Amino acid sequence: MQLPSDLRPLTPERPEPYRPLLTDAARPATFDVPAVDEHGGVRSVAVAGEHPLTIYVDKQELLTLMTLGGAPEALAIGYLRNQRLVDSIDDIVSVQVDWDTHACAIVTRNGLADLEAKTGRRTKTTGCGQGTMFGDLMDDLDRVRLPGTARLTQATLYDLLERVRHHETIYKQAGAVHGCALAANGDGAAPILMFVEDVGRHNAVDAIAGRMWLDRMTGADKIFYTTGRLTSEMVIKAAQMGIPFLASRSGLTQMGYEIAQKVGLTMIGRAVNTHYLLFTGSDRFVR
Amino acid sequence: MQLPSDLRPLTPERPEPYRPLLTDAARPATFDVPAVDEHGGVRSVAVAGEHPLTIYVDKQELLTLMTLGGAPEALAIGYLRNQRLVDSIDDIVSVQVDWDTHACAIVTRNGLADLEAKTGRRTKTTGCGQGTMFGDLMDDLDRVRLPGTARLTQATLYDLLERVRHHETIYKQAGAVHGCALAANGDGAAPILMFVEDVGRHNAVDAIAGRMWLDRMTGADKIFYTTGRLTSEMVIKAAQMGIPFLASRSGLTQMGYEIAQKVGLTMIGRAVNTHYLLFTGSDRFVR
Repeated sequence: MQLPSDLRPLTPERPEPYRPLLTDAARPATFDVPAVDEHGGVRSVAVAGEHPLTIYVDKQELLTLMTLGGAPEALAIGYLRNQRLVDSIDDIVSVQVDWDTHACAIVTRNGLADLEAKTGRRTKTTGCGQGTMFGDLMDDLDRVRLPGTARLTQATLYDLLERVRHHETIYKQAGAVHGCALAANGDGAAPILMFVEDVGRHNAVDAIAGRMWLDRMTGADKIFYTTGRLTSEMVIKAAQMGIPFLASRSGLTQMGYEIAQKVGLTMIGRAVNTHYLLFTGSDRFVR
Repeated sequence: MQLPSDLRPLTPERPEPYRPLLTDAARPATFDVPAVDEHGGVRSVAVAGEHPLTIYVDKQELLTLMTLGGAPEALAIGYLRNQRLVDSIDDIVSVQVDWDTHACAIVTRNGLADLEAKTGRRTKTTGCGQGTMFGDLMDDLDRVRLPGTARLTQATLYDLLERVRHHETIYKQAGAVHGCALAANGDGAAPILMFVEDVGRHNAVDAIAGRMWLDRMTGADKIFYTTGRLTSEMVIKAAQMGIPFLASRSGLTQMGYEIAQKVGLTMIGRAVNTHYLLFTGSDRFVR
């Protein structure tokens, strides 16, 4: 398969891109707790971690996320990206996570874009891991342009579903998390480039958005997979990341459907093994 | 079985309780959209509704919820209750939902309690349907008192799981929703008193909290069931409603476990058919 441009080796024309100063403060994914089963037997059960992480931007408290803590730096960056509070990874100087104080200190070059306006309206969104999207849910959607020429073949989709099925997950150990995968859209092959799980669906999406920025990855030649439901916010975030293909093993909502149609996203639900339902953007899908 | 006091007939000693003026503006639960399956067949698929509902309290915009819209008045009341923005149903004069403007206008007797302080801190919570809980997640938890004498028998739990399994649900039609049930804790029987589904887990919980207030239901003699994960916010809300028993077919998070222990809630996860895991509050559970 042809590797996406951002996976090709660095060259003098493509030197190591800028990266903010980052900590690497992942938390253990699971913790064992005792439980009594229906037979009265006591057993140790692995449960998913859940930790408050308060994000400070330029020393100002922004919000507290509840997270599994597997990729806190990428999560914080992706949160700022998906909330459209920063315009570019180049605007972020450093992201430092300290679990002793449950704090994530972010230093920006120029402060947050339009924070007052964006924090002025609170929209609690659906079934998501964070809930609030500052500002209007529909902000900027008109500006989203997804590549019309991108194609996804059924063989590539099946390959992705097979890879996801075999992926080692926290969910298999402990449940109570949602997973998101970013995969390359190859010719019949969809290697998983990132796989993030979190107690909140949208934390997982945001962490991938953050890592895409850090790794200078484009969305146009990728596929986004989520274990979660295709609600309005999930569709909006995929579109904002410039990813034309969104697949989920779960169902969708009416508003997720309408937004996917509006932005021309190819959305596939109930995708398990060799079954799926193609809901929108069928012009990009090749059976 | 002995009926909980709030289910017994009204008497002169127990006259019809005060109710705010309410609209009854439920939305259709599902909408049909076309989809193409893996065989290329076009079919009509039912998907769950998702609608923005902007809550205005005393003409001031509070926030916008994304909801299935099945019980918008109870949802709005329960949201104010669970966010501890109003202290009693008696403080709410009217709740009027208008889907043409996607607005829910609430009139209170004395305004919102401590709104500035509570909106001052934003905590995005985990895997939830709304996300933000204003104020400190742990606020008031020290004040929660759950009845130490309440007991749940395994037979009653199994009866509840059986009733939930046979309950007609939107989930069975369309997926993409979470369900919550409030059941009476009878002797071997757990009749479902309320069953609410929503695209957001926490909308369903809040709608039940709102209806409990409207119907003057106590929590002490009830069981709360959710299809969703037992995260910190879910446990906090059950405890705030005064319900000593929380059961889910899903798993839990470490913080959900710790909070359930702290408040002495009896928490049961992975509860399906005759299987379950009793995690906390085992002194209240009778096998």
